[in-house]
Amino acid sequence: MRASAYPLVEVDDAAALVMENIPVLGVERVALAHCIGRVLAEDLVAPESLPPFSASAVDGYAVRSSDAGKPLRVLGESAAGRPFAGKIAPGTAARILTGGVLPDGADCVVMVEDVRVDGDIVVTPPALKAGTNFHPPGADLRAGETVATAGTQLGAAELGLAAALGFPRLPVRRRPRVALLSTGDELVEVGAKPGSGQIVDSNRWALLAALRDAGAEVRSLGIGPDEPDALRKLVVEALREADVLVTSGGVSVGTHDLIKPLLESLGTVHVGRVKLKPGKPFTFATLRSDGRDKLAFGLPGFPVSSLVTFEVFVRPALRKMQGFATLQRPTLPVRLAYDARATADRTEFQRVTLTREGGELLARSTGSQSSSRLMSLAGAHALVRIPPGDQGVKAGSVVEATILALP
Amino acid sequence: MRASAYPLVEVDDAAALVMENIPVLGVERVALAHCIGRVLAEDLVAPESLPPFSASAVDGYAVRSSDAGKPLRVLGESAAGRPFAGKIAPGTAARILTGGVLPDGADCVVMVEDVRVDGDIVVTPPALKAGTNFHPPGADLRAGETVATAGTQLGAAELGLAAALGFPRLPVRRRPRVALLSTGDELVEVGAKPGSGQIVDSNRWALLAALRDAGAEVRSLGIGPDEPDALRKLVVEALREADVLVTSGGVSVGTHDLIKPLLESLGTVHVGRVKLKPGKPFTFATLRSDGRDKLAFGLPGFPVSSLVTFEVFVRPALRKMQGFATLQRPTLPVRLAYDARATADRTEFQRVTLTREGGELLARSTGSQSSSRLMSLAGAHALVRIPPGDQGVKAGSVVEATILALP
Repeated sequence: MRASAYPLVEVDDAAALVMENIPVLGVERVALAHCIGRVLAEDLVAPESLPPFSASAVDGYAVRSSDAGKPLRVLGESAAGRPFAGKIAPGTAARILTGGVLPDGADCVVMVEDVRVDGDIVVTPPALKAGTNFHPPGADLRAGETVATAGTQLGAAELGLAAALGFPRLPVRRRPRVALLSTGDELVEVGAKPGSGQIVDSNRWALLAALRDAGAEVRSLGIGPDEPDALRKLVVEALREADVLVTSGGVSVGTHDLIKPLLESLGTVHVGRVKLKPGKPFTFATLRSDGRDKLAFGLPGFPVSSLVTFEVFVRPALRKMQGFATLQRPTLPVRLAYDARATADRTEFQRVTLTREGGELLARSTGSQSSSRLMSLAGAHALVRIPPGDQGVKAGSVVEATILALP
Repeated sequence: MRASAYPLVEVDDAAALVMENIPVLGVERVALAHCIGRVLAEDLVAPESLPPFSASAVDGYAVRSSDAGKPLRVLGESAAGRPFAGKIAPGTAARILTGGVLPDGADCVVMVEDVRVDGDIVVTPPALKAGTNFHPPGADLRAGETVATAGTQLGAAELGLAAALGFPRLPVRRRPRVALLSTGDELVEVGAKPGSGQIVDSNRWALLAALRDAGAEVRSLGIGPDEPDALRKLVVEALREADVLVTSGGVSVGTHDLIKPLLESLGTVHVGRVKLKPGKPFTFATLRSDGRDKLAFGLPGFPVSSLVTFEVFVRPALRKMQGFATLQRPTLPVRLAYDARATADRTEFQRVTLTREGGELLARSTGSQSSSRLMSLAGAHALVRIPPGDQGVKAGSVVEATILALP
């Protein structure tokens, strides 16, 4: 057992080292139903205008505005999908339904509520304005307009627009394939009874949720064997299919910590220790597998350390792989309701809940910030970054917080 | 064709009418891997304390604090999962690894960086404090403590805690099963070439994304037939399996709008028109199917109308069905960067983008707010509610906005 040989890197330097080694994944064309939440790989540009024709916005009568106040003979109907073939000459009108094509000759639509009907005669109000109650071609979208730029996450509006423009598939970035492994001789599977000194593996379930939420496809490798050769075999095998290996535990300096030596033997360890609390033993490596570069994140074994390093390093990396335009979570100013004491030599990410106080967000500590106390993350709304040193951040200060969920 | 017979209901009254008819769905016990994003149906209470034993927080040596500064004989090792069986008597120590059980007799752990080792002798610093560098039982969670309350959406922290406490399954509310149908004679499937007066069905894709995001399991019924009996057969059949029918289009007053008459014939229409822009023809009904009550939301056919009424009425309803503690989206104060003109007699939900200006969120209109212009929702960060009347809301005013996504 020895002190770690890896230099302690500043958190921003570590994050930069990680990000410069992250590739953007390839593009696949995916059916709309499977595009939800995916990231657009190319700008989506309208090949045609919407609506493609003058479409009625209401149920009513298509008329000439110059015929205002006159009794008009109703020639027929323009229903949605069933246009009226004739022409609206002076003194005539056509029934028109929402979405119906405005017939030739008509220049406005009068709502059904605003007319008087007597047999095949309709009487319009005394004043009508050309251009009312219908959407002219291109009113909603002009051909050539950019609907969404590359890097946009596809949601309801974007998918609706893609469909409206006739795209049954869209080019999106491939999801990262992640192999997820827990290590530690003390771990047993959930459902099994822990023996003396044993605990249930919880990180794999927390990380599974965090990875899926970040857009990854996850293959769980279970709890890793405590024997170096067997562990190596499992990881090498998994990396044939996976883009990324995410482990928790085994990155400390203890004699039984196997992950760092394994990553050293399979590739290059870029980050081996970080001036970060929680998460000092965080490790990042690039590995070579079957002639391709793979990524490995060795997260610490303590539950909070693994999730905080996930937030700081892994989530932005997974978003870069997927081509997201924004890699970081949003931030908002919050007022601290507590004195945040700093750690002497490490940047700390404290977990807080937020409540509204007037127009402000007030941040309260989630209690003990111990790296093993996962309760400090349950229900947390934000992470507050406390710089190292003697100062800390005093209650009443306004700081920019990373928002996990709004209250 | 006639004006609608349904009374125009205030938006808040319509929302209340909807919500009082929404049931909370049943409970199912689901494996952790499938609990992600699900809603906890019962309080999750810790059956035991965490950690269950005094666990080392670091790699180092377990010692007696009264032995500070003395050379100590190392008796053995307490690794994670492999406790040291002996006792630490005065003048002795045990190597201990992160997660290892603190041996009997020891009252603190010294970090490996802080000791000098010579063969099987370790020399500790001159001052040691009892209770340092290990987590005593219950430090992270005490038996009987509530980990998460019913109504919590399960994320990484909650699933990690559930696993740590030995729960391989959790009680969650069933997801709502939704049958999704588009109606309109003008609609063709995406990928098909629209004929004269036809458009591609886009609402189904937008609503599919919105429904999935709100936690529903969706079965798509495609584009409904334009013949009342065939439509009725399709809907009745789908309701055998589904909890909810969501349609778009066909709720206007046009002669070819089939949804309102269908819902009237199958059950009770509670809301038939709302003083809402966009979304006036929004319809809500309860239907009887195979002796059970089902829900039907008839959304308007215009794309923005269907998504805005989804936000206002359907999403909170789906969340109530799933037992969510919070039914509405979060809100934040935003400063309007534009004069928001009001509609005379309807509450309007305008779509805005947000940008940070100092500590504030500045809201800009997404452009034309036409109910057919889906671009007004693409990239929108929030909905701003503008009360009806002559006043509108002036630029510079601060209003409470419904947050769809933070910038």
